[in-house]
Amino acid sequence: MFDYKLLSALAAVVEQAGFERAAQVLGLSQSAISQRIKLLEARIGQPVLVRATPPSPTDIGRRLLNHVQQVRLLERDLQRVVPALDDEGLPERLRIALNADSLATWWAQAVGDFCAENQLLLDLVVEDQTVGLKRMRAGEVAACLCASERPVAGARSVLLGAMRYRAMASPAFIARHFPQGVKAAQLPKTPALVFGPDDFLQHRYLAALGVDGGFEHHLCPSSEGFIRLTEAGLGWGLIPEQQVREQLASGALVELLPDKPIDVPLYWHHWRNGGQLLEALTAHLTRSASRWLVPLA
Amino acid sequence: MFDYKLLSALAAVVEQAGFERAAQVLGLSQSAISQRIKLLEARIGQPVLVRATPPSPTDIGRRLLNHVQQVRLLERDLQRVVPALDDEGLPERLRIALNADSLATWWAQAVGDFCAENQLLLDLVVEDQTVGLKRMRAGEVAACLCASERPVAGARSVLLGAMRYRAMASPAFIARHFPQGVKAAQLPKTPALVFGPDDFLQHRYLAALGVDGGFEHHLCPSSEGFIRLTEAGLGWGLIPEQQVREQLASGALVELLPDKPIDVPLYWHHWRNGGQLLEALTAHLTRSASRWLVPLA
Repeated sequence: MFDYKLLSALAAVVEQAGFERAAQVLGLSQSAISQRIKLLEARIGQPVLVRATPPSPTDIGRRLLNHVQQVRLLERDLQRVVPALDDEGLPERLRIALNADSLATWWAQAVGDFCAENQLLLDLVVEDQTVGLKRMRAGEVAACLCASERPVAGARSVLLGAMRYRAMASPAFIARHFPQGVKAAQLPKTPALVFGPDDFLQHRYLAALGVDGGFEHHLCPSSEGFIRLTEAGLGWGLIPEQQVREQLASGALVELLPDKPIDVPLYWHHWRNGGQLLEALTAHLTRSASRWLVPLA
Repeated sequence: MFDYKLLSALAAVVEQAGFERAAQVLGLSQSAISQRIKLLEARIGQPVLVRATPPSPTDIGRRLLNHVQQVRLLERDLQRVVPALDDEGLPERLRIALNADSLATWWAQAVGDFCAENQLLLDLVVEDQTVGLKRMRAGEVAACLCASERPVAGARSVLLGAMRYRAMASPAFIARHFPQGVKAAQLPKTPALVFGPDDFLQHRYLAALGVDGGFEHHLCPSSEGFIRLTEAGLGWGLIPEQQVREQLASGALVELLPDKPIDVPLYWHHWRNGGQLLEALTAHLTRSASRWLVPLA
């Protein structure tokens, strides 16, 4: 069998983003961690880590992490039967990548009772819609909620529904930039809000209106910050409908062009052999997500 | 003088987190970018980039980035006088690192009018209280809002005020975990919420109550997600007071132990030779931040 002392040192360095913190978490010295990584590399005959800040796994390192993650999930099932096997003890943890907008809206309500009933602790990782799958492939997370359908090898994906986005702006912003009424052709010269370099939702919205090419924009990688900037009149942006019901009702925000929503699908990716707890969570989400998401047209 | 074609290639690769996107932004081929980086390294005689995903600067690369950032800020001033010098054109952009909780609360209100009046676009980067300074040192951002006072070389820091945090939980969470009333000694066995591995606020809160050591926790790197998880009863956590006024008034959330806030200072770090626009923003923040922040005790 593999030497899991070495593999868990590798996993700790990547998950904790450094040797020092990995040592703390495993209760070892930093040099002990270094030795384990070196020993692992000597056995395999190639590097498992790129020594950058933070350290990142090589391709072979990624495969090993993936394996560790799956073994951990399988161990979780066994722990229910023989809890003393693992010195880390209960409660259980699941590491999940998800998009910021889900976390800012429906996610907590959807999983709250499930976590309490199953004594489950969550390690949440916020990733742009497509980047989360990289972490899944790297074995860093057990599941990933994102807009992309295609599962990574060894995993399954299931459609939970879609989030509906509407292009919103403050009345003051519209009065300042569109005194004659909103015209699509003027939008590129009006500051937009974009979540980050991987966020193309605003581009797609403009393209659907027949407006191509670049446009002025702020970058704001925070779901709530996005709304605050919109309310303060810094730009227009696409916001999940369920996040701004109050602002729409009070008139604090208005839709830029009436009734032009964009629906973004959400797929739940999870390891095929991820163990009972992950399966139960998958079943729970599949059953209940329609309460918060719209059907994909 | 330095060859700024080479330096801006380096800056683009780091800022865009990859060669492909850097090439897009600069309107060059990927191989042209590679050649510029190699030429830069040949001139300096050592590597400027660690070729990982994403690429990260070496120590010398970091210094070069720092320099590029400062030159760009100086160019901004000159552009006001001779706008045709730069083919990128107006409006201006400032890249700023800040903590998620400021972005989720007061930041937009504080800078909204300033951005509109100065035609300023923001590239916001969300970083944990202390990590933002690393980006400042690396020359990746022009300013940084964080809890740490000590400025990096070439920069100044100014205290804007403090955010007041209160330990909050839902009534259902308290009923489930503390049927006999909240006792500090039981807190480590009750799920807490922690923003990320660099967030020690909950640790400090427990330490101030005389409770040391580890404690059960979820990880949730999202300011709004933090509140959603608290409302859904997944755990208790320290939340900015100004972010949960409504929930406190309605009783949706209650303070775990009455009137035990923690104040976190916020320092505005900015380049000493950052140009007029950065200076004007600094003056504006210094003047107005007390509207949203409490004085540091």
